[in-house]
Amino acid sequence: MKYSYDQLHKFTQSVLQAIGCSIQDAKQAADVLLSADLRGVDSHGVARLAGYIRLFEKGRINPTPEMKIDHRTRSTGVLDGDGALGLVAGPAAMKIAIEKAKDVGSGWVSVRNSNHYGIAGYHTMLALEEDCIGISMTNASPLVAPTFSRERLLGTNPISVAIPTNEEPPYVADMATTTAANGKLEILQRKKQQAPEGWIQDKNGVVTTDPDGVKSGGALLPLGGDREHGSHKGYILGSIADIFSGVLSGANYGPWVPPFVAFLEPDPNPVGEGIGHFFGALRVDGFRPADDFKNHMDNWIKRFRASKTIKGHDKVLIPGDPEREMEEIRKKDGIPLLAPVVNDLKGLAKKFKLDFKA
Amino acid sequence: MKYSYDQLHKFTQSVLQAIGCSIQDAKQAADVLLSADLRGVDSHGVARLAGYIRLFEKGRINPTPEMKIDHRTRSTGVLDGDGALGLVAGPAAMKIAIEKAKDVGSGWVSVRNSNHYGIAGYHTMLALEEDCIGISMTNASPLVAPTFSRERLLGTNPISVAIPTNEEPPYVADMATTTAANGKLEILQRKKQQAPEGWIQDKNGVVTTDPDGVKSGGALLPLGGDREHGSHKGYILGSIADIFSGVLSGANYGPWVPPFVAFLEPDPNPVGEGIGHFFGALRVDGFRPADDFKNHMDNWIKRFRASKTIKGHDKVLIPGDPEREMEEIRKKDGIPLLAPVVNDLKGLAKKFKLDFKA
Repeated sequence: MKYSYDQLHKFTQSVLQAIGCSIQDAKQAADVLLSADLRGVDSHGVARLAGYIRLFEKGRINPTPEMKIDHRTRSTGVLDGDGALGLVAGPAAMKIAIEKAKDVGSGWVSVRNSNHYGIAGYHTMLALEEDCIGISMTNASPLVAPTFSRERLLGTNPISVAIPTNEEPPYVADMATTTAANGKLEILQRKKQQAPEGWIQDKNGVVTTDPDGVKSGGALLPLGGDREHGSHKGYILGSIADIFSGVLSGANYGPWVPPFVAFLEPDPNPVGEGIGHFFGALRVDGFRPADDFKNHMDNWIKRFRASKTIKGHDKVLIPGDPEREMEEIRKKDGIPLLAPVVNDLKGLAKKFKLDFKA
Repeated sequence: MKYSYDQLHKFTQSVLQAIGCSIQDAKQAADVLLSADLRGVDSHGVARLAGYIRLFEKGRINPTPEMKIDHRTRSTGVLDGDGALGLVAGPAAMKIAIEKAKDVGSGWVSVRNSNHYGIAGYHTMLALEEDCIGISMTNASPLVAPTFSRERLLGTNPISVAIPTNEEPPYVADMATTTAANGKLEILQRKKQQAPEGWIQDKNGVVTTDPDGVKSGGALLPLGGDREHGSHKGYILGSIADIFSGVLSGANYGPWVPPFVAFLEPDPNPVGEGIGHFFGALRVDGFRPADDFKNHMDNWIKRFRASKTIKGHDKVLIPGDPEREMEEIRKKDGIPLLAPVVNDLKGLAKKFKLDFKA
């Protein structure tokens, strides 16, 4: 079944208002969630709405947060999210980073006491219209084992960088720091297909192709998969996202990051508050005239797109290409939802006495 | 044969003075090169000295640069390296970034018109004593094919992040954005051993284990190796380093980055000046009191170090551990050099009428 952006956006906003969010916060959160659905990142869109609601109901997300910014320097600061949806705290922090960039060339805001913030790329793309490079990272529930470890100490901790262009579409990178994002594993689980080697290890730390390996005590592997293929580099990337998001801000970090699912309890002895994010905005005219920069970005993109390809592939992609193409299709044709997601949304409609036309 | 740090440092400085560098620049460059030898990154130390000299002789490195900083905003700026050794332009730019951080909380300097800058980690570690997080990237001669490409469009473009701590040794990450650094491939070439799959492809873009595959028109692969194992993420990382270093600064980028070897000529139609770097300094007390931050970093490190390990490994490493352990050994026992490197240094001694005791 396919649903229009407008229908899903309106429904998402209504559900969030029903749980107690302000109109403004509910609209902002719906913007972030639906941007994931439009861009084809189905694991981070309305499929997660029921999970967020369960966290509200457990008191682990605050529907009426009073967020506070501590402007510690002209270019840096910390936002206390007061338990907000990350979907709300994230854009707020990014906008502060952009204001700081307008003031002194760059702005960097770390966020504590927040929750899951949706797709990292939504936040970084906010910087583009201000001719800023946008940067964002977050930590997340521990699912990933560092190289040589058999414990889950890191989340899939994504990093996003969005870079403005002139005529070409912007460069928008948004990547989990693991070989494969958890969403890809969930697809294999549903289809009962084996995972490629290098994606996961079992509870003893042995590489496995069983897609349920993580559920039964194993872990996702850092980008690279194993030491010989550079998994220590994926571990570096995931740990940088963790430290910038958690240790800089005063949020939890590493194995202390609260689980996203409501049926798992947070650590009773936390090392910080909630989960953490990190946002940056870097004005391109802080380095050279903005048009010079953007014209050279166009040239960079044209050259890479024109690259000779290997057999079986007809083009070299620029980061952001697949998501932008998906967005064009789904804006036109609608957003396909799987039956279990539709059932979840119907359940929410019933609970909050809302309409959800299937 | 092993050589003392002091002997190699003094010799390196003398060679650089003989080619026309000031005492100060020669000493700075020797500091950077020898830090690589001490830390076990043999491919980036005195082994490269003869290569730098050939570039000086071709007029492609300027021994008496007049570097100019353009302070475009309080937190950002561009350094024109005037053809300097990257070993000289790099630390100069990093120090400017640190000064900007002292002023407004963070500092970001992109460098154009430079040359190879040694190990990325040297530069980021300069930030540590100022309680700043240090960040550095550089672009480099094209040796790497983006995902689905059979052209070499990126360098091994390293990224380094150094993070201050209290009692624990600092966190120092320094990684090429490829599965394996070129130096590792050179070791296999010397030993005539096969490379693991996922490191390189041949000139047709087919994965190969022939360690000479890159020399015969192939390419190194981005971290991840292939699409199924996330090579598009390695391509993202390498391209971000390229854009921040090259496009922001006005240096060359992508396939236009000048080759490091003197026998290959730079592109006759460059898109910028020389090669580019990017440096950042982020004051940790721009987010929370420095001692809070550093104590939590200690806690982060202790927790990860205490992780249960997989079979065959007795500890989980923290980024920077192997290099620091090597540094302790080599400070005590001396720096081992391979015969061809010793021969190169003897050749330089003869050319410049210097003493090199083997």
